[in-house]
Amino acid sequence: MKVEIITVGDEVIFGHIVDTNAAFLANAVYSLGAKVTRIISVGDDVAAISEVLREATSRADLIIVTGGLGSTPDDLTSQAAAQAFGRRFALHKGYLESIREKFQGWDLKFTPSSERQAMLPEGAQPLPNPIGICGFKLEEAGKTLFFLPGVPREVEKITEGVLLPFLRERIRGKEVIRASLLKIFGPTETGVKELLQDLEGDYELAYLPSFPEIHLRLVVRGADEADVEARKKRYEEGIRKKLGIHLFGKDDEVLEGVVGELLKEKGMTISVAESCTGGLVAHRITEIPGSSDYFLGGVVVYSNQAKEELLGVPRHILERFGPVSRQTAEFMARGVRRLNRTTLALATTGIAGPTGGTPETPVGRVFIALAAQDEVKVRKYDFFGDRHQIKLMASEVTLDMVRRYLLTL
Amino acid sequence: MKVEIITVGDEVIFGHIVDTNAAFLANAVYSLGAKVTRIISVGDDVAAISEVLREATSRADLIIVTGGLGSTPDDLTSQAAAQAFGRRFALHKGYLESIREKFQGWDLKFTPSSERQAMLPEGAQPLPNPIGICGFKLEEAGKTLFFLPGVPREVEKITEGVLLPFLRERIRGKEVIRASLLKIFGPTETGVKELLQDLEGDYELAYLPSFPEIHLRLVVRGADEADVEARKKRYEEGIRKKLGIHLFGKDDEVLEGVVGELLKEKGMTISVAESCTGGLVAHRITEIPGSSDYFLGGVVVYSNQAKEELLGVPRHILERFGPVSRQTAEFMARGVRRLNRTTLALATTGIAGPTGGTPETPVGRVFIALAAQDEVKVRKYDFFGDRHQIKLMASEVTLDMVRRYLLTL
Repeated sequence: MKVEIITVGDEVIFGHIVDTNAAFLANAVYSLGAKVTRIISVGDDVAAISEVLREATSRADLIIVTGGLGSTPDDLTSQAAAQAFGRRFALHKGYLESIREKFQGWDLKFTPSSERQAMLPEGAQPLPNPIGICGFKLEEAGKTLFFLPGVPREVEKITEGVLLPFLRERIRGKEVIRASLLKIFGPTETGVKELLQDLEGDYELAYLPSFPEIHLRLVVRGADEADVEARKKRYEEGIRKKLGIHLFGKDDEVLEGVVGELLKEKGMTISVAESCTGGLVAHRITEIPGSSDYFLGGVVVYSNQAKEELLGVPRHILERFGPVSRQTAEFMARGVRRLNRTTLALATTGIAGPTGGTPETPVGRVFIALAAQDEVKVRKYDFFGDRHQIKLMASEVTLDMVRRYLLTL
Repeated sequence: MKVEIITVGDEVIFGHIVDTNAAFLANAVYSLGAKVTRIISVGDDVAAISEVLREATSRADLIIVTGGLGSTPDDLTSQAAAQAFGRRFALHKGYLESIREKFQGWDLKFTPSSERQAMLPEGAQPLPNPIGICGFKLEEAGKTLFFLPGVPREVEKITEGVLLPFLRERIRGKEVIRASLLKIFGPTETGVKELLQDLEGDYELAYLPSFPEIHLRLVVRGADEADVEARKKRYEEGIRKKLGIHLFGKDDEVLEGVVGELLKEKGMTISVAESCTGGLVAHRITEIPGSSDYFLGGVVVYSNQAKEELLGVPRHILERFGPVSRQTAEFMARGVRRLNRTTLALATTGIAGPTGGTPETPVGRVFIALAAQDEVKVRKYDFFGDRHQIKLMASEVTLDMVRRYLLTL
């Protein structure tokens, strides 16, 4: 099955936004084993849209279109679809009714411009959209076209709810493809390749750099679902064995979520004291639903005074070794652990730049500490990059440090 | 002048990466006043690449291609270009020599696979690439094709060094276009449209939703550069007047940076106490270089105990009104201000969800407080969305609250 993706919008072809919808849809299609052969973007122009719709329909079996379904005058995709396939462009009564109901439910005023969204090409079937209004399906010359809105969250919801089930149904009995995403932090890409060099089997492995992590896409193909699943499981286990502790997660798992699961499993709590990461470690930990079960609190201590008064870092330590030092990191971790009475505590102190570096303590120098009941580990790093990258890398190393520690308990 | 952009690579059409090259190139072309009419992505496949090359050359005046120029077997763009236009695919001696020299300069071993990159379609002119190897230009049927590598930094360098000068030369004497991005937080998109409805003039205005902000792209065209610049300035001022305090920044400015500038201007310092935003406000503030001049510290208080012990929120307040209340927010802001001895302090407390909501205090309910020397303002909000969106929206409102406050001083 050949699939083409069309994204509509001046904001895309003028480069005002990066087209994340196309990547999301392509990845969703790919993960089921269907093949995207082309992605096309055009502007808000009826003639241009209808031209690419006709061309794509002549080449592909499934065409997924996003964008241009809203209520403003530059939303022209429905009209272009009617024109492309010589269909009447008319008000869809049932669709209009469902839009009206949604507006009522959301307590929004229904206006004539909202009514415009119910104008569809004849024969179009509205798609369920749990969090928005638009979306429809069209059959043309034995091909199927899905028209989705341009809002990424709505694209995701409709893809999950309608598009993926449709694809699964269509490709049943054909080649079976199963893919998984393996997430690694620690070694470089070259290091990962060396660790995996002896791995044998009939699979594809793609390296997807995802700073500061490395993501590996494992793809297994075959005729029989059970066989493909079994092989995929075997290869995953093989990779897991070779990469060991460096492999931290799979598919939707994120590092901060893995850390959270481990903390819950061990019945432990955690707190953080941040200088150079400026709140990013706490922010990442608290992105996970339910993190309040194990995350008790954090402090962002940018000044020496706060390090001293809030965390009890002794003044002579700050004066003798400086705020960016092994000793200060250790006292920060101990201090925040005591303050929040947590099982574990983390601390970061360093120079995120671009200014503030010295020959002895250059930009990128970061000390990271992990405090437990009876020990404190401190590590020294020299990171590269701009302020944002140094903060991100330091937060990643901090979370990974506690992950590795928890795995040894 | 019509421009099409072609990006080549399985990693793009399989959705393994987001196509930032296309957006970068489209924006560069647009900023000079030329118009991108189509963006196409295809995989690493000679037939598919040569098909889109032929099609694009039949429609557009300038075709910019990225990707598929490297030294691995799946780099097929040069070969496809030769095939598309019936040209010999041969070793370019001068190009080979320059590659050899680069390898020497970089202290890299020159291998047969490196030699492969010097195979070009007959008539191709190599492009200077200061930080990499490949890139060439081709003239075909009066049209120009630029072939660039896929590495974003190399795309940027060649665009600056070669592509933009070429475009400027071509469109000299033609239309001048100037654009700016205006950033708004506060009103809805409909609200912004209403505020701007009486604005007159010869300009284009595009709405680019950028949750939770609204970004407006203002575009002014004309024959004369000075006139276009003057009109752009006039329209910007007109918009600024209509939107007033809702307009917070322009082009590269970000809300946390604007807040930082205002704090520096007034010689003030700030600290934050975060519950539901979990460190995001501090993280955003500290993304700005030099923020240590005005940001003294923050605390993330997830537990009642931390709110009480660290910030001095009285237990009877927590018990009577609950941790998510106007009273608790007020005590948190006062407490963190006292703790860090800052001019101003911010506090957030709320339910980020997805669990933890009650009929009285639903998911999305957030109290935000701003404490100054002699007053504390507290506002109550009900935000929609998932955990991430609620955190993001709450952090935005918090930063915007202090921005608006600073502008009244």
